[in-house]
Amino acid sequence: MGGRVNEDLIKERRKCTFDIKELTHIIDCGEENTIKRKQIDNYILNIKELWDDVPEEYLSHKERYENAIKKAFIVLKVLRQLHTGNIQITDHRTPTNVYSIQDGIFRNVNPLLIHIGLFWSTIAAQASTEQQAEWLQPDSSMIGTYVQTELGHGSFIRGIETTATYDSTTDEFILHTPRLSAYKWWPGGLGNTANACLVMAQLYINGTCHGLHIFLAQIRDFDTHKPLPGIKVGEIGPKMGFNTADNGFLGFDNHRIPRTNMLMKNVQVLRDGTYVKPKHDKLTYGSMLLTRVTLISDLAYQLSKAATIAVRYSAVRRQSPIKSNEPERQILDFVSQQHKLFITIASSHVYRVVGLWMWNSHKRVTADIHEGNMGQLPELHALACCLKAISSRDASALVEQCRLACGGHGYMMASNLPQIYAYTTAAVTYEGEYTVLLLQTARYLVKFWRLAAEHKPLPQNFAYFEDYIKKNFEQWRNSPEGIIEGFKAIVAGKTKAAYDTLQCNLRNGREFEEAWNMASVQLTNASEYSTISRNDIEALQSRYEELLALIRPNAVGLVDAFDIRDEVLCSTLGAYDGRVYERMMEEASKSPLNEDVVNESFHKYIRPVTMKNKL
Amino acid sequence: MGGRVNEDLIKERRKCTFDIKELTHIIDCGEENTIKRKQIDNYILNIKELWDDVPEEYLSHKERYENAIKKAFIVLKVLRQLHTGNIQITDHRTPTNVYSIQDGIFRNVNPLLIHIGLFWSTIAAQASTEQQAEWLQPDSSMIGTYVQTELGHGSFIRGIETTATYDSTTDEFILHTPRLSAYKWWPGGLGNTANACLVMAQLYINGTCHGLHIFLAQIRDFDTHKPLPGIKVGEIGPKMGFNTADNGFLGFDNHRIPRTNMLMKNVQVLRDGTYVKPKHDKLTYGSMLLTRVTLISDLAYQLSKAATIAVRYSAVRRQSPIKSNEPERQILDFVSQQHKLFITIASSHVYRVVGLWMWNSHKRVTADIHEGNMGQLPELHALACCLKAISSRDASALVEQCRLACGGHGYMMASNLPQIYAYTTAAVTYEGEYTVLLLQTARYLVKFWRLAAEHKPLPQNFAYFEDYIKKNFEQWRNSPEGIIEGFKAIVAGKTKAAYDTLQCNLRNGREFEEAWNMASVQLTNASEYSTISRNDIEALQSRYEELLALIRPNAVGLVDAFDIRDEVLCSTLGAYDGRVYERMMEEASKSPLNEDVVNESFHKYIRPVTMKNKL
Repeated sequence: MGGRVNEDLIKERRKCTFDIKELTHIIDCGEENTIKRKQIDNYILNIKELWDDVPEEYLSHKERYENAIKKAFIVLKVLRQLHTGNIQITDHRTPTNVYSIQDGIFRNVNPLLIHIGLFWSTIAAQASTEQQAEWLQPDSSMIGTYVQTELGHGSFIRGIETTATYDSTTDEFILHTPRLSAYKWWPGGLGNTANACLVMAQLYINGTCHGLHIFLAQIRDFDTHKPLPGIKVGEIGPKMGFNTADNGFLGFDNHRIPRTNMLMKNVQVLRDGTYVKPKHDKLTYGSMLLTRVTLISDLAYQLSKAATIAVRYSAVRRQSPIKSNEPERQILDFVSQQHKLFITIASSHVYRVVGLWMWNSHKRVTADIHEGNMGQLPELHALACCLKAISSRDASALVEQCRLACGGHGYMMASNLPQIYAYTTAAVTYEGEYTVLLLQTARYLVKFWRLAAEHKPLPQNFAYFEDYIKKNFEQWRNSPEGIIEGFKAIVAGKTKAAYDTLQCNLRNGREFEEAWNMASVQLTNASEYSTISRNDIEALQSRYEELLALIRPNAVGLVDAFDIRDEVLCSTLGAYDGRVYERMMEEASKSPLNEDVVNESFHKYIRPVTMKNKL
Repeated sequence: MGGRVNEDLIKERRKCTFDIKELTHIIDCGEENTIKRKQIDNYILNIKELWDDVPEEYLSHKERYENAIKKAFIVLKVLRQLHTGNIQITDHRTPTNVYSIQDGIFRNVNPLLIHIGLFWSTIAAQASTEQQAEWLQPDSSMIGTYVQTELGHGSFIRGIETTATYDSTTDEFILHTPRLSAYKWWPGGLGNTANACLVMAQLYINGTCHGLHIFLAQIRDFDTHKPLPGIKVGEIGPKMGFNTADNGFLGFDNHRIPRTNMLMKNVQVLRDGTYVKPKHDKLTYGSMLLTRVTLISDLAYQLSKAATIAVRYSAVRRQSPIKSNEPERQILDFVSQQHKLFITIASSHVYRVVGLWMWNSHKRVTADIHEGNMGQLPELHALACCLKAISSRDASALVEQCRLACGGHGYMMASNLPQIYAYTTAAVTYEGEYTVLLLQTARYLVKFWRLAAEHKPLPQNFAYFEDYIKKNFEQWRNSPEGIIEGFKAIVAGKTKAAYDTLQCNLRNGREFEEAWNMASVQLTNASEYSTISRNDIEALQSRYEELLALIRPNAVGLVDAFDIRDEVLCSTLGAYDGRVYERMMEEASKSPLNEDVVNESFHKYIRPVTMKNKL
């Protein structure tokens, strides 16, 4: 799709006051990464077989899957070429990997996402050296997935009902689904693609339950792909998003696997049924922690996509004169529009930096654990819980705000904004549900508040609790540091209020858990506990308006710096050239409903009614 | 799908403390309406041809349309039977009509929605007596739609570029699309179904523009359905929702229609080109006002659907013991869940009552207008603007909250919650965009604040502005009346702050329109301007917790009282019998991806990779 660049966008780029490339290099963590990323972009995006004639949204549910699986194996081949000899690619969304491009190739999600991103990495992290030597082969026939959630059990994973019972007579585990609610439900790629999976199940030895463990189970014949005896597997049906992935269900009818298929790096079952406990409970939750950490960067990337689309569109779109004798203005000139969009650009940077910081912390803590030092794990875990919840909620709210800021055209699938929202909002739920994680964060805060209230020593990160109790907080200041101080005061004040409610419920004779449940709404709400005054708020409001005006001329430059290619944005509204209406019309022309001048339903249904008395 | 009712739901219904049927009658505005509604439900829902073997979400874009149009003409026939001789059915979502059932039949929207709901009613409201006699025929061949928005023009309708130029030599109007951005875009049913439409265009007579007027244009041949010469029409492609309706685009290449095709009840163009102005400008915006009024009740109905699904599911779903030695609890027992769901039930009742009140006000004001009295129109218009904005935003946020409260299963299309969200969020944009309408409301408030500030007489409805200036507000009271007083104080305080910012910008040398734009972020935000204290908030918090506990035992009864049939809810999670997991598995079994044991893509794409070295 050639064509001139929209005049308004040319002007916007001309008036940008900073070096766009320089910001791109900062985002990529260095110019050398930008160069490498662009090389990979060029290499993959030039593979013609990856591009559709008819956009994915026109296809039926079944065709979508088949189209995606075709592309997935092309991508898999490329990944293997790029990472020769290393089929673990976990460096999700970091500058030099290829995940971002996949958003464009699939306009959705790679059905092999779990196979590539979680199946192999979990084996690498949790299987013993011998198991790794056997399973991590470049020519492995396994297409795997990670199977945890059940129809009846999600957030409360201890409630999982699938059992793995050790049979010492045959040296096997018997995997079993005791009832309908125990059917596995949701894993990506499970429905039709995977022939193997890592299954989370309750381990039973001699009638004793040892809790959840992970087992490698083959579920389909490698050669014929038919489900093995004792396996009931299928696809769960259409979802709000992720429809290129065959999320599946799975039931076991006393399905036997070798004892050596339990992942045994940190925990073992010996031949005689002896159970060897892990050194540390948290070790088995590593996969979930890693996923939460990488998710933050992924969400930052989704925010940058939404911001790019909405800002470019707002520079091209004209609506209403601000003064009645003027021509219609770029909607980017409206302060209410700036308010909606600029915060999305800012949030993308915030979560990118936080995501990178968490990624590095995770690396450091993992290295410490290898040295036998678990000390930093609880704080990393608490931070990942809280940040996963907040970033997913923020990102989905802001993506939706960008979509709505594009008016009716943002409702078109061809804008790609509905798909980015469907993708982003899923993250509010999966891998730790929002409210559940916030309540975990609240427990963590209340734990340290109790220490503060009892005047016991606090970790450095919670020193501000003590300041709050001693009223050591400074008077509100309208500066970045002052605002951070203000947020600390709000956290301390809210935690105190929650703690007091809890204590009050306890004094009224409630048991702790009931008292906690009763207080749980307050625990997730916010209010003002700082010393901010009406005048301070007015000053901040003025400053905010000034900042919006300062950012305005650089808005297009700021999103250009994200440097996301049109093939990845997949948006009629957000392309670099700003040919919005031309692209919308070109996309509409691809609709199969426009192939025939008259749709056959006219003859079948319409004409018999409208021409009834005329023939 | 037979089967026993879920035990938990049986218990919930047993402990309900009020008469569910009585509440249903209140919702229906009387028992006689309930009876009539149920008769219509039974009649229509028993028509077998209206039900699919394969759910709509599995179909391709084209198949969806064809399936929907088949049903639409069955429904049209039924509507004509039910309302013999009266093909205008505008009493949208009021108790005794059949709109609600359509949500279930189409799992989406009727492609003839605009034909039935807006095309005929606009002719009835805006066409002259002679035109009505000609066009409103029961055997009319017209399938119509309402065509206003253009690719480049939505909210600012004065910017519409399509022209209707009078040619007095032939007594015709020439409809023309001067450029790409002037293409009509969005009308439902326009793409493939409609053969006629009401077009909003700029009227030109002898080189003078008289602004926007409505014209009836035939666009396809009634007999062959082929587009007429000079007409470029087609379908715009997939959207976030409304995919059973063929939203379309339309361009005119000097398309001629008779002069008598302009809607001439309130305004006329005579044979010699004389333009006869309407008595009142606002008269031509009647269709939009009516749509906004009816939308409020529609959104209340969508809220009742979402609440029914989420509450029933939350009574069936069990997750986590509250105390560690207990069995897992119904998630409806968690206060954080009650907080998310009960407000949805309450909001549905609020908007239902407000919608009914607006509907009756609209009837009264319309009757007044017929008597020549336009006095009440501006206030009704302002109220409809504000309530349309608030109700659509509230409803979509609450529907999404209900969806997220159902966890991962709420992400399944079979829950129907994603579709209800897609349907509801569209209302934030169409028929008056949220921010645009809020800013109109703000202008209205600021206008009366200026009167108050200048100590000029105020209408009764704005007396509280004067109270606020004179500091006549009472001290905060924790009672319903006290809360209403508090809201008045907030509105007054916010309006004052906006007005002051505006004045300040003006004093700094800004012109009014620039000053307004600069202040427009503040104008759409909220803050506390009442005399409420920390203690008051704590007391309200306790009262709120008490109320959640009081409502809890009646939650299922409250949603049962909405009396929405399973065929309309279309939800595996929300059915009356609560057989959640059974229905989820039954729905999944309908997936075409589960028809073949091995999908053909295994042989084409998977096997060549996984078995490469094994053969």
